[in-house]
Amino acid sequence: MIDKLIQGIKKTGAPIVVGLDPMMKYVPEHIKAKAFKAQGETLEGAAEAILEYNKGLVDAIYDLVPAVKPQIAMYEQFGIPGLIAFKKTVDYCKEKGLVVIGDIKRGDIGSTSEAYAVGHIGKVAIGANKIAAFDEDIVTVNPYLGSDGVQPFVKVCTEEDKGIFVLVKTSNPSSGELQDLECDGKHIYEIMGEMVNKWNAPTIKDGAKYGEVGAVVGATYPEQGKVLRKIMANSYILVPGYGAQGGKGADLVHFFDEDGLGAIVNSSRGIIAAYTQEKYASYGDEGFADAARAAVLDMKKDISDALEARG
Amino acid sequence: MIDKLIQGIKKTGAPIVVGLDPMMKYVPEHIKAKAFKAQGETLEGAAEAILEYNKGLVDAIYDLVPAVKPQIAMYEQFGIPGLIAFKKTVDYCKEKGLVVIGDIKRGDIGSTSEAYAVGHIGKVAIGANKIAAFDEDIVTVNPYLGSDGVQPFVKVCTEEDKGIFVLVKTSNPSSGELQDLECDGKHIYEIMGEMVNKWNAPTIKDGAKYGEVGAVVGATYPEQGKVLRKIMANSYILVPGYGAQGGKGADLVHFFDEDGLGAIVNSSRGIIAAYTQEKYASYGDEGFADAARAAVLDMKKDISDALEARG
Repeated sequence: MIDKLIQGIKKTGAPIVVGLDPMMKYVPEHIKAKAFKAQGETLEGAAEAILEYNKGLVDAIYDLVPAVKPQIAMYEQFGIPGLIAFKKTVDYCKEKGLVVIGDIKRGDIGSTSEAYAVGHIGKVAIGANKIAAFDEDIVTVNPYLGSDGVQPFVKVCTEEDKGIFVLVKTSNPSSGELQDLECDGKHIYEIMGEMVNKWNAPTIKDGAKYGEVGAVVGATYPEQGKVLRKIMANSYILVPGYGAQGGKGADLVHFFDEDGLGAIVNSSRGIIAAYTQEKYASYGDEGFADAARAAVLDMKKDISDALEARG
Repeated sequence: MIDKLIQGIKKTGAPIVVGLDPMMKYVPEHIKAKAFKAQGETLEGAAEAILEYNKGLVDAIYDLVPAVKPQIAMYEQFGIPGLIAFKKTVDYCKEKGLVVIGDIKRGDIGSTSEAYAVGHIGKVAIGANKIAAFDEDIVTVNPYLGSDGVQPFVKVCTEEDKGIFVLVKTSNPSSGELQDLECDGKHIYEIMGEMVNKWNAPTIKDGAKYGEVGAVVGATYPEQGKVLRKIMANSYILVPGYGAQGGKGADLVHFFDEDGLGAIVNSSRGIIAAYTQEKYASYGDEGFADAARAAVLDMKKDISDALEARG
């Protein structure tokens, strides 16, 4: 799957993934009003609103970027109706040719991780059938339980040509509490980076540089990103934290390899809620999708300017 | 919520939680046959089978134990129909008076953890309404992202009188790869244990010993359990790994406080698939629920014998 993602990045010239994290406060009022009128202020009403919002956003940006990253928590909070909206979002984005990165951050003991892996990126066995339930292209994985919590995902990646991004150094303020601890002269994030290499190595296809096991490293930690880019030479890095969380284009350059590949940067509210920023206010609520498109183009320029500036 | 769990443990004399992890290979053939006949070998058919299996199990054991722990991955692998079965299982168990521990192992950056917290143990805001989506009593939480990934759960625990168990030292073979690393003379699991104390302290009600923030420590690591019992003096410990994963009654004694409280031991396949063991083979497939009941009673005796033997 990583080859498909790289093709998309080359074709669009945008190493950008749009985070589809439809918090209710970002959904434009006219969409909420219509959905609540039809379904009430219920789980179903919320689910209808976020699905409509997503469709508007995707229609406006699908030709500009290679991938989207729906954050499943933003759907799961609305229970079953929310998860139906998640699944419909996945399907809608795949129909548009986008690579869908399910930001699920799952991870458990071996037999349980296997269930998550087959449910999200593989096929579950039911009698004589094998059925894909959620069918994302790539998912994020939490490595707190060690190799036997990650390997079932790696196995499915190989069988189904899918990918994963393992959490290594996350973008949030408190990520250092555990991830920056030092053990025998190495930080936990460096140790995890080396584990990513181990998991990734068997997934690298002949002649390819990058394997199916990538890593999550936050834009908010550029120094750690520089170190991790070197450690995980054969892994793509998914970089959250750009924009609203504080990361800037100039912070991103060290996440990329010399050839401009090796990283894909996520922005969620900076794009999907661009219409609420002063910069894009002229689009208005009704123009939320056009504002998102403008924000993607600005982000693309910010990143390419930063990459050019490094020479 | 921890007080309700402790009341249940005292009333039943069983510090036991039954893991409702309905892997298809454990579901008796007659239940699968009926569900597949009605729904086909589909996600819906699988979901119907696991729900019927669960109901049979719960009817047989609900008077013997204080709590059940459905592992959401085993439902999520069957997509939306599977998650509907999860929600129905939660509701069914709550109707029977059981404390429901959702084994969801979620954890993310702050705003995202908040969505998981309100979706699983709290209420999500939709317009003027606040609605409980999954409505478990307690959930498990993955702490890889540090405090701002855990605090939103703690907040909801306080607001809604719910609980969490934070992963500290998990039961799986590779848990030591990260959790046993040593930093400045302390293992990661000890450092996490101290963080659990910090999160737990504000949730301890007046006059109570235990707070709403407990910890997961695997039965398969009794020495670490002994250390962690001392570190986390005010946290209940959820102990997975008994039975099928290799933990025995004698391994469990150090997880408990002197008064016999402080720990609750999970068994999943050792109970729900007891009918597949030689020991309970006489029950047959049709007697799966009675076999589960017998296995609970044997587990209760194993634990109480071990606690008595320590004097």
